[in-house]
Amino acid sequence: MRATMIHGPGDIRLETVPDPQLTDDTDAVVRVVAACVCGSDLWPYRDTSTGANGPQQIGHEFVGVVEQVGSAVEAVAVGDFVIAPFLFSDNTCALCAKGIQSSCVNGGGYTGCQCELVRVPFADGTLVTVPGTVDEAMIPHLLTLSDVFPTGHHAAVSARVGEGSTVVVVGDGAVGLSGVLAAKRLGAATVVAMSRHAARQDIARSFGADHVVEERGREGANAVKEILGGIGADSVLECVGTKEAMKQAFQSVRPGGTVGYVGIPHGVELNMPVMFATNSNLAGGVAPVRSYLPDLLPDVLDGSILPGRVFDAEMALADVAEAYRAMDERRATKVMLRP
Amino acid sequence: MRATMIHGPGDIRLETVPDPQLTDDTDAVVRVVAACVCGSDLWPYRDTSTGANGPQQIGHEFVGVVEQVGSAVEAVAVGDFVIAPFLFSDNTCALCAKGIQSSCVNGGGYTGCQCELVRVPFADGTLVTVPGTVDEAMIPHLLTLSDVFPTGHHAAVSARVGEGSTVVVVGDGAVGLSGVLAAKRLGAATVVAMSRHAARQDIARSFGADHVVEERGREGANAVKEILGGIGADSVLECVGTKEAMKQAFQSVRPGGTVGYVGIPHGVELNMPVMFATNSNLAGGVAPVRSYLPDLLPDVLDGSILPGRVFDAEMALADVAEAYRAMDERRATKVMLRP
Repeated sequence: MRATMIHGPGDIRLETVPDPQLTDDTDAVVRVVAACVCGSDLWPYRDTSTGANGPQQIGHEFVGVVEQVGSAVEAVAVGDFVIAPFLFSDNTCALCAKGIQSSCVNGGGYTGCQCELVRVPFADGTLVTVPGTVDEAMIPHLLTLSDVFPTGHHAAVSARVGEGSTVVVVGDGAVGLSGVLAAKRLGAATVVAMSRHAARQDIARSFGADHVVEERGREGANAVKEILGGIGADSVLECVGTKEAMKQAFQSVRPGGTVGYVGIPHGVELNMPVMFATNSNLAGGVAPVRSYLPDLLPDVLDGSILPGRVFDAEMALADVAEAYRAMDERRATKVMLRP
Repeated sequence: MRATMIHGPGDIRLETVPDPQLTDDTDAVVRVVAACVCGSDLWPYRDTSTGANGPQQIGHEFVGVVEQVGSAVEAVAVGDFVIAPFLFSDNTCALCAKGIQSSCVNGGGYTGCQCELVRVPFADGTLVTVPGTVDEAMIPHLLTLSDVFPTGHHAAVSARVGEGSTVVVVGDGAVGLSGVLAAKRLGAATVVAMSRHAARQDIARSFGADHVVEERGREGANAVKEILGGIGADSVLECVGTKEAMKQAFQSVRPGGTVGYVGIPHGVELNMPVMFATNSNLAGGVAPVRSYLPDLLPDVLDGSILPGRVFDAEMALADVAEAYRAMDERRATKVMLRP
């Protein structure tokens, strides 16, 4: 099959590799219908120190059709259209039972998915079948359920967004935009998106953002406070992972509020005395996507939410190197790849 | 009146100072019936760098009887037996309305309360009247409501303890013990108290602790995991504030669980990459006591809970220096002072 390989920083190639095979009787092999490039794929693309050592497959977000199943697989069948959460999980261990499938004791990541076929371990505990016939127009929305939308949702849930919450979203990438949509879906009264990028501001507004703040730092936090009654937000979604973004988040949260973070932290520093004095809380991490899908999928299928709007480019798998370049250079927010 | 003064490390004296007066029309002056020494009072007692500069009054936990009220005070009256949360608050600002009275925009601390009379600003927004006649036996339990029990409760609430939760409490001081009681009251299924001190273990058990773990560090965390199905606790209450205690808390929490912290952090370091990978959350800070009293007071009055068991010594105010010594030397868990 054809598969995307990363050879080092900036070096993405589509190559031919052996087709994956069923290894365990709980495996499935899934033919990829659509995959995409994640912001986290850009870390090894930009810097060898963060991952890629020598040529290896890459990618972790996809939807597809089940092509083979092991003898012990019961919940999915050949021909099913499935959503693959970006980590596999047995969905039976003590941590899965607590809803934290991203820490499944038997879990892990795929070999890669920006390719044609993927071996999925623990197919029953991982894949979620989409009922009925899947229209072409539904594919981008379903694809977001493998990572980006549930990750934005996780930021909102971690930040304790609920009915009537005031919310600030730091980060206008695909995850941040998904966070805006998730926060409104959870009942937020007011959502402030922090963005300087006109096209992304438009997506944020289409996802329900009530206000956009372009300022950053203390000036941005002051603008937020002015909008939110002088005291900052009940919930802040930190969807970047940099030191500056986390600082922005804590500057924007009100005393007693919570920062929900889903950006992989890089050099983040926390001010514990201030956190303690103000009861500013921190929650989040790697999204337990599998846990959220039963709640999120119906809203996608009935069109209540359109999370696929985060895709502003679609390319053939053959153009995967250009997909990385477009995201690296910020010419695209998020690229969908079609094998 | 007689008032406790701290002159410097280890130097506590009872001296005569002018009686406090009504200053604003929202003030009350309260005659202290019982006060106590807080673990946090020991920081300036032990180290000049953490607070005391020259002679000043000290103490912030007390109950008493209202002796004078300003012309604008409506909710409390002369003769009322009142609980004084350890911080005053107007209970009307935007942050009080969010239940975070410890960050009241007009709030602050008392001049001191290990004395005979205290001026309480914003009496209506601060003091809570105890209905009916107060028996002598009820006084220790009511006194805990000014700080130590709601602080343990805040640790439990911050750590998201609820029906069926598994809980670890780090710290066997009066706050940690209160955390045990609070966690059971909130429906925890299993509470593990970490303690090496026989008398405190007994109090923990009387407060509902199901297990006591004496080991510390990785060994302690392993003992906790063995008790809790191999995965650690849903909720950990960190009731000390040291680097070691916070580390113990994060070693003991399960992926997706929450550390609720109420110990003033001193040199605490957080491991962000591990927190992110495991969704280990952190919440807490200065307890908003005033917010919790309407919920907690009825359970104290009807005897459902007996939080006053944390007092293992009672002394006359004249012996306040000995009260500090006894707590500093760990001869007492918590000392009640009677003027």
